This record gives sequence, structure tokens and C-alpha cells, in this order.
Amino acid sequence: MQIVHTEDSKRRAATTELSGGHLVAPFESPARVDQVIAALRARDSGPIVAPTSHGMAPIAAVHDAGYIDFLASAWDDWVAAGNTGEIIPTIWPTRRLGETLRSRHIEARVGYYALAGETSIEAQTYEAARTSADIALSALDHVLATGAPAFGLCRPPGHHAAVDQFGGYSFFNNAAIAAESARQRGVSRVAILDVDFHHGNGTQQIFYERADVSFVSLHGDPVDEFPYFSGFADERGAGPGLGYNRNHPLPPGTDYVVWSGALDAALAEIAAQAPALLIVSLGTDIFKDDPISSFTLDSDDFVDCGARIAALGLPSLFLLEGGYAVAAIGTNIANTLAGFEAAWRPGRS
Amino acid sequence: MQIVHTEDSKRRAATTELSGGHLVAPFESPARVDQVIAALRARDSGPIVAPTSHGMAPIAAVHDAGYIDFLASAWDDWVAAGNTGEIIPTIWPTRRLGETLRSRHIEARVGYYALAGETSIEAQTYEAARTSADIALSALDHVLATGAPAFGLCRPPGHHAAVDQFGGYSFFNNAAIAAESARQRGVSRVAILDVDFHHGNGTQQIFYERADVSFVSLHGDPVDEFPYFSGFADERGAGPGLGYNRNHPLPPGTDYVVWSGALDAALAEIAAQAPALLIVSLGTDIFKDDPISSFTLDSDDFVDCGARIAALGLPSLFLLEGGYAVAAIGTNIANTLAGFEAAWRPGRS
Repeated sequence: MQIVHTEDSKRRAATTELSGGHLVAPFESPARVDQVIAALRARDSGPIVAPTSHGMAPIAAVHDAGYIDFLASAWDDWVAAGNTGEIIPTIWPTRRLGETLRSRHIEARVGYYALAGETSIEAQTYEAARTSADIALSALDHVLATGAPAFGLCRPPGHHAAVDQFGGYSFFNNAAIAAESARQRGVSRVAILDVDFHHGNGTQQIFYERADVSFVSLHGDPVDEFPYFSGFADERGAGPGLGYNRNHPLPPGTDYVVWSGALDAALAEIAAQAPALLIVSLGTDIFKDDPISSFTLDSDDFVDCGARIAALGLPSLFLLEGGYAVAAIGTNIANTLAGFEAAWRPGRS
Repeated sequence: MQIVHTEDSKRRAATTELSGGHLVAPFESPARVDQVIAALRARDSGPIVAPTSHGMAPIAAVHDAGYIDFLASAWDDWVAAGNTGEIIPTIWPTRRLGETLRSRHIEARVGYYALAGETSIEAQTYEAARTSADIALSALDHVLATGAPAFGLCRPPGHHAAVDQFGGYSFFNNAAIAAESARQRGVSRVAILDVDFHHGNGTQQIFYERADVSFVSLHGDPVDEFPYFSGFADERGAGPGLGYNRNHPLPPGTDYVVWSGALDAALAEIAAQAPALLIVSLGTDIFKDDPISSFTLDSDDFVDCGARIAALGLPSLFLLEGGYAVAAIGTNIANTLAGFEAAWRPGRS
């Protein structure tokens, strides 16, 4: 399978994450990239190519202009204000206390554009997020040009990033940017399958009122898990998008038997939508040893997971999302792609 | 002047505040209480009495039941979830990503009930907040019983606390609780004058649609200063409360000449409302050496400030809010009360 990768995806190197009242080393680390590319090389998973620049237009087609400007200028503004740590929001809009952005102060802008406070912004975050989107778009190029699958080794992840909000380690929504780009390039309908442990709240929000890009997600029940405020089964889309958003929340401790049953249901929903392109938000934090998740998939299960996805027979783009069991992330990604490739035949659905 | 104080107001002793991407020692510290009471004793400012318990009813008359339950149980739930730091929110409801509380998880509840992230909750916070409300209510008792003024040495502060949100060092809104209690005890109309450097967004929110309790505030322009999302001059109340909310945002570097002019305008607004009781949210962070504020009042200016407030001739209740120049806070409070007492004559307005 075509693999798109650059060492620039390690450029974002935040040193702080807010967790349990402490500032800890971030779970989402550059070492994840090293592990994945090493495993793909060791397994000879496919040709590895560098991304090409796609400029800002595909990003601006998904994200708010003020938000992009914020990400581009946040670090300089933060440092100019005399701050010496990484950027973490301390105040944000809340119900009945003012919900619009009327201040240009960096503290106000940080809070306005944040959906969560664990993820700090550092000097390289904006460029790294741009690179990650280019990785996704370059992998999409291959799928659209050849019909064959591709894997974008995206970092930072993207699926929590909303139209105008960052958080959950996400800044630009790589899967959404690729989906919208595919639509603009003539793909009739795109389905996004999100298997990351955490609900892809950003992706859901971006396409919630659209039927041309569907979003189908398996994830830890938000009653128990981040992002807590979305990912419930009754969130099914709105307006023209009603029915094109499908959430499959699953309880803590979910094993592969239960998980794969939910996957089959999700795949059936996607098949019924008859998309022309599948984008998989591939988070491996469903693995049993993930430090911030609670499912119990083993590494071998990822092979079968890939095979089940292949049965759709769709042109398929895999993009890396989460997965924080660093020692296993390479194996789990390589297994998924291997399982997919062994089973995939174009146009089988 | 009657002074209500207890050493229990030092019980909240948080060790962390999120500031500039670091966890620092909180600016709002127990040492503030020591400085204020020492200055009041040294100046023989008046009899010092302990608060009496007023139970939860006056608090529940202002704050949401779910919010009170959250504050009461948050620390135990947080510790039970395995956290070892103090409570700081990491995710909260945001626009289009879910704005209701559907999870009982402590992380979800913390974020749902937070308006800001700098203020951590520790083991004693709930009891300390209850004590602070009792101080305010006990000082109110004296004013209502005698017509003479009183000072409640409240800690933690209260004016950022909203119906169901904490932040800005505030948990229960002492001024709002006293105002509502006064109303329920037959006071026809209450005016709250907030001279703290920061906009009292919580107090504003609580009474925004009411005419029987007005809110008039002088503060750093939210374009430049916390809480950024409210405190603008065009926020004038709603419904029956239209015109009873008055904000006087002032630019960084405001000196006493400008500030006292705005105070006179605020006092004229209050006089025109003909309240039967004045509550002063007395923050001294308008002082020139305050570490997190930008006005330039000198200690002597607080004497004149007190005298101008006295000219209203109203039964008056002073409650401590912010003020983080610890070495000067005692002098600044004592000066305000002395200036008031020297000039005050009942029923002069």
C-alpha cells in the first residue's frame, strides 16, 4: 500500500499536557511516528513517499478563516504577551457569560478556539498541522489517481478538530480536509469510518448537516470517555445530513468480539450509503494496552479489522489518528493495513 | 464598622493555578486574609465577630442544585478517579460540539461547571465557599438589624461565580447570595456596586433579567482583561432587568482621576435606582502594584473611594473580592472602610 510520510510530522514536540491536575509529558508524541514507519519498513508494507504541498485552500475549505489565522499567529502572540509556558487555555466562552469573541487578547482567542485544555500549542504546531493535512491530501491524490489504497502517516491527528476549534491533540481535521477535497474533485459521496477509541467530535461537527460526506464512528461511550459532550447514539445528523451521522458508543472493557460486531454494523451502514470513497480515521487506541483508553483489542485483531473493512471493496484512504501505546502502535497499524491489503479487491461491494 | 471574620476563611489552600502554560502558586492566597485582618485590628476599624451558619437555603436561592452538588462531591469523585493533582478542567461544552451534561464522569462535570481553568478545586474548597457565604450573610444580618455598615472578610471571593459555574477564584457568589437574601427578607431593591478590577461576570449573569437587584461595575475593559467574554458597556440587562446592569469598562493604566470619574457616574446610576441597600463587591486589585491587573490607584485613593460611596447614604455591606498585592491589601481595605465611615451619614442620599 502506498504510504505517505515525512519526518516533518515529528516537528510538533509539545512538552506539556494537562492531565489530572498536573502538567505531564504528552501522550501524543513524535515517537509514535518512529514506531509506525519502522514497522511499515520492517514489513515492507509498501512504497513510502513524501507529501507534496497543497497550500491552504483545501484547509480553508473546511476550517474557519479566523481559526486558521489564530493557529498561525497564536504562538507569536502568546510569547509577545510575556508567557513562557506552552499555550493552554484558561478561560473560554460559556453559557450566559458571553459566547462571542470580542477581544483580540491572546488569552481570549486561545479560549475561544479551544474545545479542550489538555492539548498545548507550541512553536511548531501550526506548521506541523499543515504538514499533517498535506500528508492526508497527498495520500488522497494516490487513491484518486489509481483507485488503490493509501495510508497517510498523519501527525498531529485531526479528528477532534472542528470548524473552528482545536483540542484532543488535533488542530486541522485531516480526514475532513481529504473528504472535502475529494468532493470538490468530483467524488460523488464520501464515507468516513472512525475507529479511533475517542469520538471524532470534530469530524462529526464539520459534516453534521451534509449527506454527501457521512460519518460513522465506533468509540468509547461519551458517558465514560473523552470527549464526554458528544458521540451519543442519538446524534444522527441534521437537515440534509439526517441519518448520515452514525455513532456506536461502546462500554469500557469492550473486547474484539463485541467491537467487531459493531464494526460490521457500521460497515453495513456505510455500504447502504453507496459511497465512492472510504476514508478511515485509524486510531489504534482501541488496543488493550493503550494508556488512556479502555478497550481490549489485541494486535492480531487489527488484521481482521483491516480485512472486514476491505470487504467494502471501496477505494480507501487510511489516515493515522490516535494510539498511545507507543511500543505497539507500529505493529497495530501494519497489521491493519496488511489485513486490508490481503482481503481487498476493488469494486467488490 | 462591624467586621465579620473567621480563620476558617483560610481553609482553602490551593497549591496550583494555571497561568501562562505553567502551574504556579495561586495569586488568591490565605495570606490575604491575614493581611486584611491585621490591618483592621491595627487600625481598630471596628468590632470583629465570627459568622454564624445560615445553612444551604440562601446559597440554593442563587445557585443551581446540580452545581452545588458538584462542588460538594467534586473532590471525592476526582480522587476516586485516580487523580493526584488539584482539579483543573480539561474539556468543557463548546459551540456545536455538545453543550449539555449527559455524562456523570468527573471530568465532564468539572468542565460543565467551569467558566475558566486557572482556578483549581482542592479538598477544602466547598467548605471554604460555604464559610465565605456565611460571612457575607452574617455581615448582612448586621446591616439589616442596625442600618449601620458592615464588612464581610469573605474568602474565597464570589463575584465570578455564576448560577452554575465556578472560576476566577470564585465558587459561591457571596454578593449575590447576600442580595437575594436581603430581597427575601423584605428589602425592596438592592444595588450591587462592583469595584474589583475584573468584571463580575457571575453577579451580572445572576441578576441580568431582574430590576430588583441592579449590578453596576467598574473594571478593566474585557477587550484587554479577564474575563474577556463579558463586561462590555452594551450589556445593559434584559427583559425586566433592562437598564439595571451597567458596565464601565476602563482601559489599561487607568488612574484615580479617570477611575473616580467613572465611580461618580456609577454612583449616580445607583442613586437614580433608589435602592434600599448597597452591596459593594470590594476588590482592591485596582491598586497600582497588583500583580495581575493594570490600574494605578494608590493606597490613599481608597480613602476617597470610600468617602464617595458613603455619599449615597445607604445602608451598606462591603464584601471582600479580589486584590493580590498582598502586602498592601490590608491597608487598602482599611482605607476604604475608614473613608466610608468618616463620610457616611444614614439617609443622606
